[in-house]
Amino acid sequence: MLNPIRWTGGGLTLLDQRRLPAQTVYLKPKNVNQVADAIRTLAVRGAPAIGIAAAYGVVLGLKRLAKSSGARAAAVDQAGPFSEIVETLRSTRPTAVNLFWALERMRRRFLALPPAASLTAAVRALEAEAVEIHREDQASCAAIGRHGAELLPQKATVVTHCNAGILATGGIGTALGVIYQAADLGKTVRVFADETRPLLQGARLTAFELAHHGIDVTLMSDGMSAALFSRTPVDAVIVGADRIARNGDTANKIGTFSLAISARFHNVPFYVAAPVSTFDLSIARGHDIPIEERAEEEITRIGAGRAPRGVRAFNPAFDVTPARLITAIITDLGVIRPVTEQEITRVIGGRR
Amino acid sequence: MLNPIRWTGGGLTLLDQRRLPAQTVYLKPKNVNQVADAIRTLAVRGAPAIGIAAAYGVVLGLKRLAKSSGARAAAVDQAGPFSEIVETLRSTRPTAVNLFWALERMRRRFLALPPAASLTAAVRALEAEAVEIHREDQASCAAIGRHGAELLPQKATVVTHCNAGILATGGIGTALGVIYQAADLGKTVRVFADETRPLLQGARLTAFELAHHGIDVTLMSDGMSAALFSRTPVDAVIVGADRIARNGDTANKIGTFSLAISARFHNVPFYVAAPVSTFDLSIARGHDIPIEERAEEEITRIGAGRAPRGVRAFNPAFDVTPARLITAIITDLGVIRPVTEQEITRVIGGRR
Repeated sequence: MLNPIRWTGGGLTLLDQRRLPAQTVYLKPKNVNQVADAIRTLAVRGAPAIGIAAAYGVVLGLKRLAKSSGARAAAVDQAGPFSEIVETLRSTRPTAVNLFWALERMRRRFLALPPAASLTAAVRALEAEAVEIHREDQASCAAIGRHGAELLPQKATVVTHCNAGILATGGIGTALGVIYQAADLGKTVRVFADETRPLLQGARLTAFELAHHGIDVTLMSDGMSAALFSRTPVDAVIVGADRIARNGDTANKIGTFSLAISARFHNVPFYVAAPVSTFDLSIARGHDIPIEERAEEEITRIGAGRAPRGVRAFNPAFDVTPARLITAIITDLGVIRPVTEQEITRVIGGRR
Repeated sequence: MLNPIRWTGGGLTLLDQRRLPAQTVYLKPKNVNQVADAIRTLAVRGAPAIGIAAAYGVVLGLKRLAKSSGARAAAVDQAGPFSEIVETLRSTRPTAVNLFWALERMRRRFLALPPAASLTAAVRALEAEAVEIHREDQASCAAIGRHGAELLPQKATVVTHCNAGILATGGIGTALGVIYQAADLGKTVRVFADETRPLLQGARLTAFELAHHGIDVTLMSDGMSAALFSRTPVDAVIVGADRIARNGDTANKIGTFSLAISARFHNVPFYVAAPVSTFDLSIARGHDIPIEERAEEEITRIGAGRAPRGVRAFNPAFDVTPARLITAIITDLGVIRPVTEQEITRVIGGRR
């Protein structure tokens, strides 16, 4: 029921996450622009889910091309329409690297087609590739869950930020995957979820999916972590990631960096949970990760009203938590600890 | 126009801050219960303003008593109706000590009346006392502003949290008083205001009053401070206070503690601005300050909708920032630095 992305009968279905939790509405984008819009407007969000949706977007684009161009060889379109499809999807959001990773995989698959392959054959091959990306992400989530669950005690209290769950991935989630897996192992997990302003992914999505799966969840506003840590023993903070630099610096939803500082001040372990596809080894450190700035209205809109005219807003969608504040990164290939370039290279070097 | 509390012709007028910034509505409470409701429901809020409103509430209560009891001596009612009036106001909110401080002052003034004084004379004396509390707070704000403005450079970037301005006091504010005073001295001040979830006092009140007075203000959500500090040179964080313990530990609006940790991490000076009436020297350390817990709905309500049923919320209204994270406390009597029990006693000991 909570599946954010489905591919059935060659068609794409996205759960419209902008409407959750009040309404469960599905979108059926028919072309590349509609998929790009769904990504840009956060109908589908979460770094791994964005990558998967974009991969299916490429398939939809190529299908349309095949329909209009008939039996022409795919190779003909290499530099033209196919690149346009990829470019439309690439330009939707700048921070989550899984988007670029998935599109690059799709492009390579396209380029690997035999020169005489028809567009129909290209659609078939790229559809298989997208389904494989989706399936791999599902497996990655399960592996992250297994590795992370071992880090939690039998009775655990966990803080999370934004939504790094089923709704953000092709599987059980990254940060929340750890929690689901721990619960499956019989551990008792209590979650405190940051509501995650301005778009309230914690309140709307994380609380929704955890409650739906019977996990004990308590909402709090983003500034409450220090108050919580000073009153209640917390075993771990676990968050997802949108892009991890070679040195371990991690871009994630705005508010993550403040939470990490607060966790360190209170000696609470701070874990990032992410698949290998979230690492960007071409980027040396977090400072070089492009950060999306979103509309000021996301902050100045207050319920039905708004802040006074003339008041501006600061609204970066992500921030970068320096590696030294991260206790460990939980990946599908294992746990990276300490978070250093050397250890990252050792665990995932060959795979990314 | 922005005056939160007015006392004219023996009547009280409160600006209803729950409706700001969309509507400017005034309340005219006629009795103690209506003043208590206004405090409890945050129509009037901010530690100094709560104290002033409560003092006027005592006058309204005593006036009603005088009306129904005629010329009876005030002393007769000492243990009875007068105590009830004070108790009704005392029980509204537990954290801001200015409330208890103002009520204690009113009680002492009542007890100091000559034994044969009439209720009418008591009303006159207590009205004068309440007006004096109000006037003193105005003078305190001005003094805090002067002391604090000296700490800011000619071009200053300041972060603040919640609302510690005109709307929270009987004068130009505490934290925002420093900013207004610096602007009056010709300094250029740019303010980043935390929106301050869950009740958005930063977005609704601080942005409103700063914009109204021509101060450059940019809103941000509470989790953004670390991102801001890591990108933009910030000269100071300045916040108000609801109660300061003998050792300098400071209770203030929830989110202050997280902000203080983030400021320390980034080596940004963190100032608390508060009048002497906010100190509670009877309390040794912050741990002993009672913290108000507010309704979960303040968190689970999302615009017109709400988080899924069954999701609980953590909603302390205040947190306690340990003295060691506070660079200095700016009071009406001078700047306390370093923030230690010894220095607090030296600066304000005789006055509180």
